[in-house]
Amino acid sequence: MQKKIKKVVKPLAANPKGFVDYQGYEVFHRYKMLKSITDIYYKYGFDALETPAVETVEALGKFLPDVDRPNEGVFSWLDEEDKWLALRYDLTAPLARFYAQFRNQLPSPYRRFSMGPVWRNEKPGPGRFKQFYQCDADSVGVPNVTADAELCAMLSDILENVGISKNDYVIRINNRKILEGILEKIGLEQENTESSSSLTRGVVMRAIDKLDRLGVSGVKNLLGAGRTDESGDFSKGAGLTSEQTALIIDFISARSISNEITISKLKDIVKGSEIGSEGLAELESMLESVVAKRAHDKKFIIDPTVVRGLSYYTGPVFEAELTFETFDHRGNKRQFGSVAGGGRYDDLIKRFTGQTIPATGVSIGVDRLISAINCCKKSSRKIVGPVVVTVMDKTLTQYYQSLVDELRSNDVRAEMYMGNPKDFGRQLKYADQRNSPVAIIVGSEEIERGVIQLKDLKLGIELSKSIASNEEWKSRPAQFEVSRPNLISAVKKILTRAGE
Amino acid sequence: MQKKIKKVVKPLAANPKGFVDYQGYEVFHRYKMLKSITDIYYKYGFDALETPAVETVEALGKFLPDVDRPNEGVFSWLDEEDKWLALRYDLTAPLARFYAQFRNQLPSPYRRFSMGPVWRNEKPGPGRFKQFYQCDADSVGVPNVTADAELCAMLSDILENVGISKNDYVIRINNRKILEGILEKIGLEQENTESSSSLTRGVVMRAIDKLDRLGVSGVKNLLGAGRTDESGDFSKGAGLTSEQTALIIDFISARSISNEITISKLKDIVKGSEIGSEGLAELESMLESVVAKRAHDKKFIIDPTVVRGLSYYTGPVFEAELTFETFDHRGNKRQFGSVAGGGRYDDLIKRFTGQTIPATGVSIGVDRLISAINCCKKSSRKIVGPVVVTVMDKTLTQYYQSLVDELRSNDVRAEMYMGNPKDFGRQLKYADQRNSPVAIIVGSEEIERGVIQLKDLKLGIELSKSIASNEEWKSRPAQFEVSRPNLISAVKKILTRAGE
Repeated sequence: MQKKIKKVVKPLAANPKGFVDYQGYEVFHRYKMLKSITDIYYKYGFDALETPAVETVEALGKFLPDVDRPNEGVFSWLDEEDKWLALRYDLTAPLARFYAQFRNQLPSPYRRFSMGPVWRNEKPGPGRFKQFYQCDADSVGVPNVTADAELCAMLSDILENVGISKNDYVIRINNRKILEGILEKIGLEQENTESSSSLTRGVVMRAIDKLDRLGVSGVKNLLGAGRTDESGDFSKGAGLTSEQTALIIDFISARSISNEITISKLKDIVKGSEIGSEGLAELESMLESVVAKRAHDKKFIIDPTVVRGLSYYTGPVFEAELTFETFDHRGNKRQFGSVAGGGRYDDLIKRFTGQTIPATGVSIGVDRLISAINCCKKSSRKIVGPVVVTVMDKTLTQYYQSLVDELRSNDVRAEMYMGNPKDFGRQLKYADQRNSPVAIIVGSEEIERGVIQLKDLKLGIELSKSIASNEEWKSRPAQFEVSRPNLISAVKKILTRAGE
Repeated sequence: MQKKIKKVVKPLAANPKGFVDYQGYEVFHRYKMLKSITDIYYKYGFDALETPAVETVEALGKFLPDVDRPNEGVFSWLDEEDKWLALRYDLTAPLARFYAQFRNQLPSPYRRFSMGPVWRNEKPGPGRFKQFYQCDADSVGVPNVTADAELCAMLSDILENVGISKNDYVIRINNRKILEGILEKIGLEQENTESSSSLTRGVVMRAIDKLDRLGVSGVKNLLGAGRTDESGDFSKGAGLTSEQTALIIDFISARSISNEITISKLKDIVKGSEIGSEGLAELESMLESVVAKRAHDKKFIIDPTVVRGLSYYTGPVFEAELTFETFDHRGNKRQFGSVAGGGRYDDLIKRFTGQTIPATGVSIGVDRLISAINCCKKSSRKIVGPVVVTVMDKTLTQYYQSLVDELRSNDVRAEMYMGNPKDFGRQLKYADQRNSPVAIIVGSEEIERGVIQLKDLKLGIELSKSIASNEEWKSRPAQFEVSRPNLISAVKKILTRAGE
């Protein structure tokens, strides 16, 4: 007999590269986290705003984190009217568009929070995906650093509200104007519109940003001729002279054991630069305002190496860093580093309006924060499943359904087993896979006697694990009978034990 | 003097066409609604799943609501590896992909809920935007209509849980197999792969779907030669004979004052068609199962005109319809119609796996539901704003900040005014724009005396509205003084009145 071969082209059931699905506990945990964060934003007086995922590329602008690749790194497409649309890559660019669009109707200052996914068309890494959540708060229309100081204080409240302990984080604060002063002193001021100089500024900023990873000598190489990494790849440097390099190295090495010492070091370094001194004065005033609330709190640290990638920052910049160490699933030590950050971007809205509108904001990397918290918490990451009413006898379906209805009306999460009921073992396996606390087992014989069998599934697991529990087994069997009217109270007793 | 004209090209601050922003109350209201819905899904035993916004076009398939335009109506783009990616247009297609991808790890049946925005690249209309929220629950792996009946019962619970009264909605139920039986009887069976016949099927289904709008005679024309609308545009009809048309008209006219009569009418109509009779039997059994829970509930109505646009449905289909009338902002009568719907799609996952996997689900149009509820509720749609601590004297900023801190630690939403403090009137205008309940006013004189001025802003508005309130004014002035230690209790008293 000849077989007819018919080729069926089946689509591949797979996420696009760099995208992932989240299930059960992960989804709940994220919503809980978003609620904890936005509760604080709300309490601080910020109002909710939700802008759509899609913006015109024109409105998004060229403010991607990596200045080398403007307009790259986003998901974009041409619409029917020949306009480029794109998925938002952060929540700040849409805020700038929204504010410019509705500024005449909005209160001034305008204080809003937003949360939601953002998209980056970048190479994904471990724990870094192309879609991830941000949760931001911004004040538009406040020219002085009171607003920036408030954001830092609020960030600290939030970290503690979501469960990071007081000793496990610091907030590192800097001011872009100080760096601007240094760049001015070495002849790389912003007004210098020669493109070679502006490229050099970019190389310098990114070199500073890499201090953590490369150390002082690595940064020195990147500021000078260039650097060859472990794999042999060569990165061209900024080509600064040794005097120029020395000033920058002094600057990034200024972080000291106390903010007072750091400030006095920075005073020397920026001497002679107007913008540098202005930045330092802002930094001092901001620190004063934050620390005033929190009596000599050591959590707020002046750190000249905080640059923040985004090119739109114009003044204060800050980052929340988790300081505890954890181990990844391979047992390697891992530091979480930055989970949130922000700063002032007085010129971003100007793109639309033509006039400078002061603005400052904070952005929390919700997914990074979640994975950090998951790492240090040992608690169960499983949702307690529904009570499963098993199907012993198909003809009793209406009876089973009435049990489920009664459980649900008493606020108990419950369902009837809906798969093929023939194999009873499969029903219990299902209950187990759902992390169900209780299975309910009733046949016609039980109905006649007016009773119900309850199987305590958590206890069953505990018992099968431990032989020493023989005594407890006797006093508290994993399966037992209750009279029909006692269903709800018996189930609730088990649920309380199961920790729901 | 000659003016130098420098052309600055400013980007347009505008949403892409068909996209909108949501603020304050709208955002809160949606999250509250999503929580009410998912609380019920959860209680019924469904687990959370969040898939990303982006899928491969291959995985999404061609199951857009409008069968005329497969692959149109989505936002899609080509990625670097020459794969087409797209924004999801519903939550069912991603579920099918997810289930096929992870089916070996998932419990069977797999019961999940999802919520989030979906995107349609279609012409927006009043209240219809290109991004909108859906909130779905699906059971995968249940071959019988118990699962479909459960979805209908759950939908009814949800509508009542979000505030729709028992008399303001119906759930209309049908079964695609009945329609299939009718189509078979007139020679338009699915197996008939002639493309002309499959096109005719599409025209017939959409004609039935338009009964509400066009009436029987309009549908008749669409089933026959065609129809000319009010604007003079002609739509080509399905070209059926008068006998064929008559059977379909009988079918869609079968809805009667009671489900029993409808069923007996349908029995006659499907007589002789195996699939038609199977559909009717399923419909009866589903109704029995739903109504068993709710003693002769008139909310569940068999309605042969329920077709549901999506081509992937294979069995039960249903729709929740709001039955109350409202008036739009122009005073025109408006019916809300369908706010949720769903059905069985046994072949959707087969695309990936090659084997039929039974599945059924419900999808709630969250934004439509919200606008329906907003229409019938007269309650305030404004969030109570923060307590605003005004700035009388810039040098007292630290003192003002300490008041704000104290309010926040006592769980009172509060902020210090952060705009330019010079014009005090502007500060009160700001508080008003924010819908703030209280403004706090303190100068150095008040500090010396250990007191604080509170301005009850809601009361101020009430008083200015009514002259007859003179008596109350005296007993309860809009601005009054409290001693510093009484700040919190005095503010909380006003907040309670303001209804926060």
